[in-house]
Amino acid sequence: MPSTHLTFTSRDAHRAWLGGQAALPAGFRVGATRFDFTPREAPKPARMTLTLIALDRPTPDFAAVFTRNAFPGAPVIIGRRRLAEPSLGAIIINNKISNVCAPDGLETAARVCAETARHLGLAPEQVLPSSTGVIGWSLPAGAMVAALPQAVAALSAGSVLPAAEGIVTTDLYPKIRRAAVGRTGASIVGIAKGAGMIEPNLATMLVYVLTDLAVPRDTLRAMLARVVDDSFNTISIDSDTSTSDTVVLLSSGKIPAAADHAAFETALAQVCRDLAEDVVRNGEGVRHVIRVRVAGAPDRATARALGKAVVNAPLFKCAVAGNDPNVGRLVQAIGKHVGAHAPGLDLGRLRARMGGIEIFAGGAFQLDPQKEVALVAHLRDAELYASVPTADGIFTPPVNYPAHERCVEIDLDLASGAGACTVLGGDLTHEYVTENADYRS
Amino acid sequence: MPSTHLTFTSRDAHRAWLGGQAALPAGFRVGATRFDFTPREAPKPARMTLTLIALDRPTPDFAAVFTRNAFPGAPVIIGRRRLAEPSLGAIIINNKISNVCAPDGLETAARVCAETARHLGLAPEQVLPSSTGVIGWSLPAGAMVAALPQAVAALSAGSVLPAAEGIVTTDLYPKIRRAAVGRTGASIVGIAKGAGMIEPNLATMLVYVLTDLAVPRDTLRAMLARVVDDSFNTISIDSDTSTSDTVVLLSSGKIPAAADHAAFETALAQVCRDLAEDVVRNGEGVRHVIRVRVAGAPDRATARALGKAVVNAPLFKCAVAGNDPNVGRLVQAIGKHVGAHAPGLDLGRLRARMGGIEIFAGGAFQLDPQKEVALVAHLRDAELYASVPTADGIFTPPVNYPAHERCVEIDLDLASGAGACTVLGGDLTHEYVTENADYRS
Repeated sequence: MPSTHLTFTSRDAHRAWLGGQAALPAGFRVGATRFDFTPREAPKPARMTLTLIALDRPTPDFAAVFTRNAFPGAPVIIGRRRLAEPSLGAIIINNKISNVCAPDGLETAARVCAETARHLGLAPEQVLPSSTGVIGWSLPAGAMVAALPQAVAALSAGSVLPAAEGIVTTDLYPKIRRAAVGRTGASIVGIAKGAGMIEPNLATMLVYVLTDLAVPRDTLRAMLARVVDDSFNTISIDSDTSTSDTVVLLSSGKIPAAADHAAFETALAQVCRDLAEDVVRNGEGVRHVIRVRVAGAPDRATARALGKAVVNAPLFKCAVAGNDPNVGRLVQAIGKHVGAHAPGLDLGRLRARMGGIEIFAGGAFQLDPQKEVALVAHLRDAELYASVPTADGIFTPPVNYPAHERCVEIDLDLASGAGACTVLGGDLTHEYVTENADYRS
Repeated sequence: MPSTHLTFTSRDAHRAWLGGQAALPAGFRVGATRFDFTPREAPKPARMTLTLIALDRPTPDFAAVFTRNAFPGAPVIIGRRRLAEPSLGAIIINNKISNVCAPDGLETAARVCAETARHLGLAPEQVLPSSTGVIGWSLPAGAMVAALPQAVAALSAGSVLPAAEGIVTTDLYPKIRRAAVGRTGASIVGIAKGAGMIEPNLATMLVYVLTDLAVPRDTLRAMLARVVDDSFNTISIDSDTSTSDTVVLLSSGKIPAAADHAAFETALAQVCRDLAEDVVRNGEGVRHVIRVRVAGAPDRATARALGKAVVNAPLFKCAVAGNDPNVGRLVQAIGKHVGAHAPGLDLGRLRARMGGIEIFAGGAFQLDPQKEVALVAHLRDAELYASVPTADGIFTPPVNYPAHERCVEIDLDLASGAGACTVLGGDLTHEYVTENADYRS
């Protein structure tokens, strides 16, 4: 990561670029509709978007991975069953309410699937439900069923943008990434939603990846598992694992593939890595993306866990938010993790760099005032926007597009093996607290 | 916890209460002095307090536990060696710089010990060094040695308050707790420092517990290990484990003990639990203390880990900060932990209450608008102070005393065994971010 180094100076420029990413692969249509309702548990008006992704013809070639949270949402429970079905024809997605442990959650999700199937001429088992939003509330099934015809009427084969926009909650902007598959003429297009409660354990919040290349189900599933492990499973915004994480990959099969699917997996990995980085860059309150490259670990799992420990250490995250190169907090985070989870690991050969500048080697900090100045400059250069509160102390991001793709670059070499992993996370900011504390959800 | 239910309406009232706690057990003197200096690594003026705790006569009966962070500070490395010495006569403590992985850290700490010993007529090995503050900087040994005579001159047998005040960094107020030991006439007095980087793994930041009861070294050490495990090891402010965590227990031996030390352990446990709760209540940015009582777990370790997962879940912590009873985020945190770390645990019998109100049972949320109102009231009642920013968005606590000892009360019953543990943590607030991001440390 990243495969791109984009910069944008306005929402319009970002939208124009998204438009270029958005063309749907052959065999897919998407549509969305919005409506108002009142939740049962905490009566106050709310707005929901219903998004439909439909195949021209049901496909046997689909793959999905779901959260490891021990309280999976009803859509995840149903989605796991769908993996055993012979084919899938559509995905019906709602935001605002995640349908987790609601007393009637499974029944409601099944009803929405059945109504969707009826409109599209499918069997209910050919529809995958997906939900994101408040945990604990019940879906407004009646209102959703009433809105379905509008979503069906909106189905269009042109652009994935209506779906990318439809699935968001606290996201600042829609996320779309595409890649061509070698010279096959086929493409992969992925969309993602996710801004908080993001430390996926198998998958991130909601990701849908569409391709027209014919790749058999078993191959598709094996590839998705590998690719997710190296993309969505290496990011963390706030260490919280959602109850609804879902990544779905659908092939319409419109374009025949060569026997060797290597080009497809390469393209799939690129799309997933780019989307994963997009999810972090648009994480709730994220003003700096932190990229930790861990090398020289005994194995990849140790490298990944150490990288996660760094990007999840609150004090280091706060220091980054303040453009403060408090590398003591970085080393604290490493020592905390190794002391608690890998006590046999020898840290005596650790070399640590930030922004390419050596800060720790030979068991001791390597600091001086000149390095401090350079480290501050590196942090400022990676800042996505300046933090400016309103008079009443409310912090909201002043941009609705990603300004650039620069990161705070941390390199850790343990010199204890060949294990390596790159982990992405964000800083801990007033904008995160405002998003999650200042307004009742 | 807690053994007390105190409320204070002003700093003066809190100070008066502290004065009543502060009488030193027989055989101890404390003194402190303050001086200005310039750190080598980032030249800007800084102020350090040097605090001395001295025994009238060196004692063989001392105990200490230290951080499990894999990058322990020089004082921790030396402290572990001191445990093998026949006796201890004094502790020399500095704030502002924690002396962790500094190129000359061990030499500097040894020099400060030697100079302290010279002033007090002790051997250098009879002096325990302790440091807290910025990680990565070097101790100003020359300035510390120059200031030592003032600390020695200030030694007094009256009150522990100068030491409780001397060891703080970002603490809002000093922390002192005392208990009488049965009817022996002996007492235990403890002081604590700690406001951030607090999820102790063996001990909390800096805690010194003094008693005049004669308890043999081996008994003292076994008791301290048990008591710490049930007090400081059950709290977390921000999940960050300091490189300098230290708990020291000293007996002057002035008052003979009965063979049965049970009353002593009871009193010691009370002092340590109260200090642990004080540390949380004065945690950086903490506006609500969250108490999670986990019962019905397969074992105590599982119960404690689950409680820690709840008090460390950023989204739930933010919701509490906002007086938002977002119990979905609470259940998410439980599911995240069990899914990742205890996948065999059956959550089907989980019953969860907040403020005594049932919110989850039988696999589903138990919510309605009336409960919502009651939960908001419970959260508001546990708030320590209202969050008020300055015009430029700086959030600083408006109080320098603990207003009350109420908590957000969470009860989780897994109905899967007899394991239980109570864990204390805090919310995640603008005040935490301001403390750790808005000002360069």
